[in-house]
Amino acid sequence: MGNLALERPMNQTRVELLINADRLAQSVDQLAAIGQLPGGGVRRIAYTPEDLAARAQVQAWMIAAGMTVRTDAAGNLIGTYPGTDPHLPVLMTGSHIDTVPTGGRYDGAFGVLAALEAVRTLAERQIRLQHSLVVVVFTDEEGSMIGSKAIAGSVVPDPEYYRRPDGETIHACLHRIGGDWAAIAQAYWSPDRVAAFVELHVEQGPVLESQNKQIGIVAGIVGQRRYQITVTGRANHAGTTPMDLRQDALVAAAQIVLAVQAIGNLPGQQVATVGMFNVYPNAANVIPGRVDLSVDVRDLSDARLDELMTQLTHQLTAIAAQTQTQIHLTPCLKNEPAPADPVIQRLIAQACDDLGLSYTHLPSRASHDAQAMARIAPMGMIFVPSVAGLSHAEAEYTTPEQCTAGANVLLQTLLNLDRQGTVPLTSSNASNASNAIAADRQLNVGSPS
Amino acid sequence: MGNLALERPMNQTRVELLINADRLAQSVDQLAAIGQLPGGGVRRIAYTPEDLAARAQVQAWMIAAGMTVRTDAAGNLIGTYPGTDPHLPVLMTGSHIDTVPTGGRYDGAFGVLAALEAVRTLAERQIRLQHSLVVVVFTDEEGSMIGSKAIAGSVVPDPEYYRRPDGETIHACLHRIGGDWAAIAQAYWSPDRVAAFVELHVEQGPVLESQNKQIGIVAGIVGQRRYQITVTGRANHAGTTPMDLRQDALVAAAQIVLAVQAIGNLPGQQVATVGMFNVYPNAANVIPGRVDLSVDVRDLSDARLDELMTQLTHQLTAIAAQTQTQIHLTPCLKNEPAPADPVIQRLIAQACDDLGLSYTHLPSRASHDAQAMARIAPMGMIFVPSVAGLSHAEAEYTTPEQCTAGANVLLQTLLNLDRQGTVPLTSSNASNASNAIAADRQLNVGSPS
Repeated sequence: MGNLALERPMNQTRVELLINADRLAQSVDQLAAIGQLPGGGVRRIAYTPEDLAARAQVQAWMIAAGMTVRTDAAGNLIGTYPGTDPHLPVLMTGSHIDTVPTGGRYDGAFGVLAALEAVRTLAERQIRLQHSLVVVVFTDEEGSMIGSKAIAGSVVPDPEYYRRPDGETIHACLHRIGGDWAAIAQAYWSPDRVAAFVELHVEQGPVLESQNKQIGIVAGIVGQRRYQITVTGRANHAGTTPMDLRQDALVAAAQIVLAVQAIGNLPGQQVATVGMFNVYPNAANVIPGRVDLSVDVRDLSDARLDELMTQLTHQLTAIAAQTQTQIHLTPCLKNEPAPADPVIQRLIAQACDDLGLSYTHLPSRASHDAQAMARIAPMGMIFVPSVAGLSHAEAEYTTPEQCTAGANVLLQTLLNLDRQGTVPLTSSNASNASNAIAADRQLNVGSPS
Repeated sequence: MGNLALERPMNQTRVELLINADRLAQSVDQLAAIGQLPGGGVRRIAYTPEDLAARAQVQAWMIAAGMTVRTDAAGNLIGTYPGTDPHLPVLMTGSHIDTVPTGGRYDGAFGVLAALEAVRTLAERQIRLQHSLVVVVFTDEEGSMIGSKAIAGSVVPDPEYYRRPDGETIHACLHRIGGDWAAIAQAYWSPDRVAAFVELHVEQGPVLESQNKQIGIVAGIVGQRRYQITVTGRANHAGTTPMDLRQDALVAAAQIVLAVQAIGNLPGQQVATVGMFNVYPNAANVIPGRVDLSVDVRDLSDARLDELMTQLTHQLTAIAAQTQTQIHLTPCLKNEPAPADPVIQRLIAQACDDLGLSYTHLPSRASHDAQAMARIAPMGMIFVPSVAGLSHAEAEYTTPEQCTAGANVLLQTLLNLDRQGTVPLTSSNASNASNAIAADRQLNVGSPS
């Protein structure tokens, strides 16, 4: 590790190097101007002109910060700040700059710009790490996650999986951003090339704010299972059919909603949701004959998810019998949990301690590029609070102070990792590989995030 | 009463006059051919060419049976079989021949044709009753019920209430069938002109079949209340929002569905249904922020309906508090119950006994023209079984034997009423008058049947 500057502008910190808060805030503002919406949010969908303009801006900033920049076959924008030892695997960080159709200013972009700010901070003090520091802008996180999946070697070979909702092929999309579908396998990084991957992101949930913590240390990215349930009863006249002769699909489905909620409310960190719910024929004077509904269950432990779904399945059987309906459950998405590396979690906690920042450990219940990256590298994630837990909305907000704190934790964590040396890939990561294709099937059933 | 034929073709009966089962079945077949659907059902919507053709057919049959026929200002087709005493109020019977878009062969049409068959039976034996017997084909039962409401004096004066779903005015509709909106008040019959009104109809429900009864004696037509409930929670990320920080509108709405079912399951004859149920934003990965649902509650007693809704309202308050949601209930339909006259019920029971037919008393939980007629006359209804309880469907079916039994009960009841003389209008009927306009507002919220 190189020389550190000696100034200590924050009284409460024990660290010697801090990012430039104004410069970070300015970059956040500048990037948010690309695709800005009237309400203050951002529309910067992957592969659109706004995405391309934002990529060009970040590339220019990377070069100005002393990085070498390239675009890989998956369209990932990869900036490298060379280390002193070219034989060491790299330290990798980054996130995404594409957004949902009506997104916020911070989701993804903040993680990229904080990584850039870390490099700028090092560069202006002419500090070189032992490890090369690689900052990645991942392609299409809000859609296919093809960027991080290509780096992790988990892209599905069939290009049809990646056809855009508007019908455009993945070939055309990648070509536009400088990638090449035919060469996508070349985007892969073998595990021996990456010492660690760390992603800084807004929480997108209310936990940090409700616990009044400045930093979240992600314990892992939850596994997610999604099911389609169809309840079949018998549609009939709401006036002429006595209560005891009904086969009311909605009464059964209501019991399912409460059973799913009960599963979610068991002791633990899991969440369980019925979000989609369609009733047929859906008329005030007709007893519902059919209900289609979705069940989404997430937890850090795959065994726990098995256990919860076994419980739910038993309850579905009882509900079907009691309501004289048929209930069919069809799995339609399965993402295995991706635990965060314990060593990286400890180094993030040490960074928080050194910076005098409060923190808590929590699961990430949304998907992130880090989930794919956990397949090839020890993975860690740092969260900063989302005001009111809002995300995927124009009103998404994280204060400048919270942003500064997060960027400093990222920088210190990278410094800690550089000092620590490489982190062995723990066995827990290996389990992700086998499920990469299952995870990718999410493309068939809508956005999983 | 005139002379009765002495033949007794059914061993089990004590009656001397029976309808012609073959002729009735033939008429049912012939009328079903007008607007016949490929699946065996009928599409004969009010005011359409099919409705007009069916009216012309029934009119021809009425004339052939010795009736005088006229069309009143509401388009009701009114056939009169004159009695021996022109000073007596009439005995009135009838039903409707219009159908829902995909209807059955029996709903309405059977009641009209059985009444016609009763007249034919009397006429071919040259039997005259003391009272004139009036057979009415009521206009548009499946829509506005304007025919029976006009006779009962409960038409809303505003023609906009009666505009058709396709935008056609009531003026144009009535003109086409020989009616006249401007003169609709002339369709009214004062209570002193009608000794009794009796309607024979298919049950449209499963009660008679499940109890293995041949005839249903309607105790009254249930009152109906309909409400719109809006549950407002907070839409949020299904992954990142912990269970204890949710305001899930669907969880609240599911509890409401079960509370409504519990109200329906209390001891008594009431039914309670949630038939319409819409979830927003309705995506698998978003906690529902709003649910709109309908509640439909029916019972023979208005006081009982008050009591049930008071109970439900208390539960809504508890559900809102427990789920941290807002719940708003808006009344959108209120039809008062119409009790059947006890004397007529007794005369129907006597007819069943004399014919050796099994019967039970039951409420009618669907609306009928008899509901409007109860405002001006002692009212009775006779039900025959609906196979599998099916109605408003092509598969609607009542066996020829069940049809024959029902028509014979109608004939014997009319004979019993003629013998009995006029039936005083009971006080229970008076209560319907004040609610006629409220009942008519159902036009604003969809079909109430």
